Amino acid sequence: MLAPSSAEETLGLIPLRGGLGNVPGVALAGVQAGIKARKRDVAVIAFDRPQTCASVITTNDEKAAPILVSDVHLKSGTPMQALICNSGCANACTGQRGMDDASATARRVAELLGIKAEQVVVASTGVIGVPLPMDRLCDGIERAAAQLEGGTKSAHDAAEAIMTTDRVPKLSAHAFYHENRRYVFGGIAKGSGMIAPNMATMLAFIATDFPLGREPFQTALTACVDESFNMISVDGDMSTNDAVYAFAPVGESNVPEIAREALRRVCLDLAQAMVADGEGATKKLELHVSGASSGAQARTIARAVVNSNLVKTALYGEDPNWGRIIAAAGAARAGLNPATWALSVNGRPWVGTGGVEMLSDEDARRELEHANVRVELRLGLGEASATAWGCDLSRDYVRINASYRT
Amino acid sequence: MLAPSSAEETLGLIPLRGGLGNVPGVALAGVQAGIKARKRDVAVIAFDRPQTCASVITTNDEKAAPILVSDVHLKSGTPMQALICNSGCANACTGQRGMDDASATARRVAELLGIKAEQVVVASTGVIGVPLPMDRLCDGIERAAAQLEGGTKSAHDAAEAIMTTDRVPKLSAHAFYHENRRYVFGGIAKGSGMIAPNMATMLAFIATDFPLGREPFQTALTACVDESFNMISVDGDMSTNDAVYAFAPVGESNVPEIAREALRRVCLDLAQAMVADGEGATKKLELHVSGASSGAQARTIARAVVNSNLVKTALYGEDPNWGRIIAAAGAARAGLNPATWALSVNGRPWVGTGGVEMLSDEDARRELEHANVRVELRLGLGEASATAWGCDLSRDYVRINASYRT
Repeated sequence: MLAPSSAEETLGLIPLRGGLGNVPGVALAGVQAGIKARKRDVAVIAFDRPQTCASVITTNDEKAAPILVSDVHLKSGTPMQALICNSGCANACTGQRGMDDASATARRVAELLGIKAEQVVVASTGVIGVPLPMDRLCDGIERAAAQLEGGTKSAHDAAEAIMTTDRVPKLSAHAFYHENRRYVFGGIAKGSGMIAPNMATMLAFIATDFPLGREPFQTALTACVDESFNMISVDGDMSTNDAVYAFAPVGESNVPEIAREALRRVCLDLAQAMVADGEGATKKLELHVSGASSGAQARTIARAVVNSNLVKTALYGEDPNWGRIIAAAGAARAGLNPATWALSVNGRPWVGTGGVEMLSDEDARRELEHANVRVELRLGLGEASATAWGCDLSRDYVRINASYRT
Repeated sequence: MLAPSSAEETLGLIPLRGGLGNVPGVALAGVQAGIKARKRDVAVIAFDRPQTCASVITTNDEKAAPILVSDVHLKSGTPMQALICNSGCANACTGQRGMDDASATARRVAELLGIKAEQVVVASTGVIGVPLPMDRLCDGIERAAAQLEGGTKSAHDAAEAIMTTDRVPKLSAHAFYHENRRYVFGGIAKGSGMIAPNMATMLAFIATDFPLGREPFQTALTACVDESFNMISVDGDMSTNDAVYAFAPVGESNVPEIAREALRRVCLDLAQAMVADGEGATKKLELHVSGASSGAQARTIARAVVNSNLVKTALYGEDPNWGRIIAAAGAARAGLNPATWALSVNGRPWVGTGGVEMLSDEDARRELEHANVRVELRLGLGEASATAWGCDLSRDYVRINASYRT
């Protein structure tokens, strides 16, 4: 009854370890530049061919400097050839100086790689309102540029270098065959399952060796992001620095079904890895809304439930308080009908229509003890469905976030 | 620079202890009926004259049975004469049985008071999805009806009887003179500052002895709720049971300025008491947005900031991470202009336009150590302003909410 989860493989996709490191023509590195204490904090990704870049960026009114500078580069029409990302400093709310620093960062990468500054995408994550330490950053860029290579080790280093409160690096890759040739979609990401509605930054960098045209690539990326990152992070509540950048060699091609599926799977893997690594999270919630009158209704309600602090704390406490799920679904004001909904947990009927409990509190509590709790909310209104992913809200979340800057 | 807070008295208003107990013609009681363990859980309020009732109720799609039954009573056009409220059980998501129980509750009150069932407003708060224990509730109603009287003690008992996770009962009353006669507006309320976006129920019951016409009373109440309860609880995110009911003797009168001010002050007092009593809250945040291009813009941004978990946890940790305030303001997508905003804390300039820090982290941290932290965000766009109130998010919030039902 539940939507396919990442564990289920799509026909024809070959999952690979090592994320971006598997994509032919991609070289990368992650180094320690001293922006954070004793951790990798600068990642550089370089491509051996000019790239089409599709992107989905934050809708926050206060966009960070790297988001704005990258957007100018992308809109220039020049094919991209590199990406630089630092952690430890978001370069957000930094005014003109922040813009100058982001541009200077792109210039430094371009000089080292022999490309144009406009061919570089810039990204940052970390504390807001603090200027980039340009000396340390540029030193890091030089060392990263000297170490660029493909493979799992480099991809891990780069994935580590973009982490903030993440506990583990996030990587995904899937190979596929098209017209008897092998291709790969791979990516790295950072972010936590507490993202929405809390605006901790999420970043994902994805690449393939399958040449694609700009428009079909953008359309496919937007659709995949809607199903994955946007089902853990509400559109209207993005951080100053959120971005997904996806690269493919410049081409004219549409996105064949199998390539779209590989891109989708990489997005879902990375999004679910964020949820599993939620700040302080002890368990994961998969919320499937079915029987909706439209996909939009299903998505709105699914996201509202996984974003509710009361649902999150009940999950943490394994408290079978299903009323919080329904209250959150109703608060979305997307047309929940009190007379027609029903709830299941881990495939067992939990509450029938009209609020009839079908599990004892004791049995329900036992279901909530699972590390991955799957709840299905059937709306009884139509045929559409959507799945959202969340995690619980623990005391550790508060500990982590009560002293982030200092 | 900040909006008048509750501490500042409005000319001509006389603050009184004992909330609703001060309103002539109002008798009330709060008793233990055994719905909760060893705590008062049933409140009855009775009026000696027919009442006009103005109301603002939840916008949640899943409205609790008492909300729906009361709405039918209010729309019948009959003047109201009593209110019954229980805690310990929300009577929400309880289907037809819940509707029947809410109606039976009104009938029992009406029988005891010699009025019609349609003259009774019904309210409930507590766990969702559990049927009302009607025997215990009716027993409590009988005992409450036998104890009805005016005065501070009764008002305290009633205010206690509607509490859930509240630590203290919430009461407010202000007397005023109009055409040489003395009148009172008084109220009791329950709710916590973590309400939004978390959908814990808030209830407020307000009354006056100033006779009022239905339409002007409703208009005044709606405006006052927008400035008070809606500035701690986002409109779109209300619980299944949220309601504000306000009573005045049936009359034809408009609401004179001084009466409106008394109603407004009672609403502000009760709303701020909820914030101060937030689940696990250790401190209060008053967020004043000024220089907005419209009142709606100011309200949207102010609410977005006080509702951000990251702002709340930073406040708890006294972490001077002002970027979270700006990120939350930007995420509201209400037109924050990155080039024109500036921040103050407790009246001291904190961050100037362009992100220029004007306080050291050490100094800013010291300001965040206050029990009441006042932050002003000047948008630099116009003349409108709004104030929202919130509290911090502590480990205790998680403890309280991780085991609510069981």
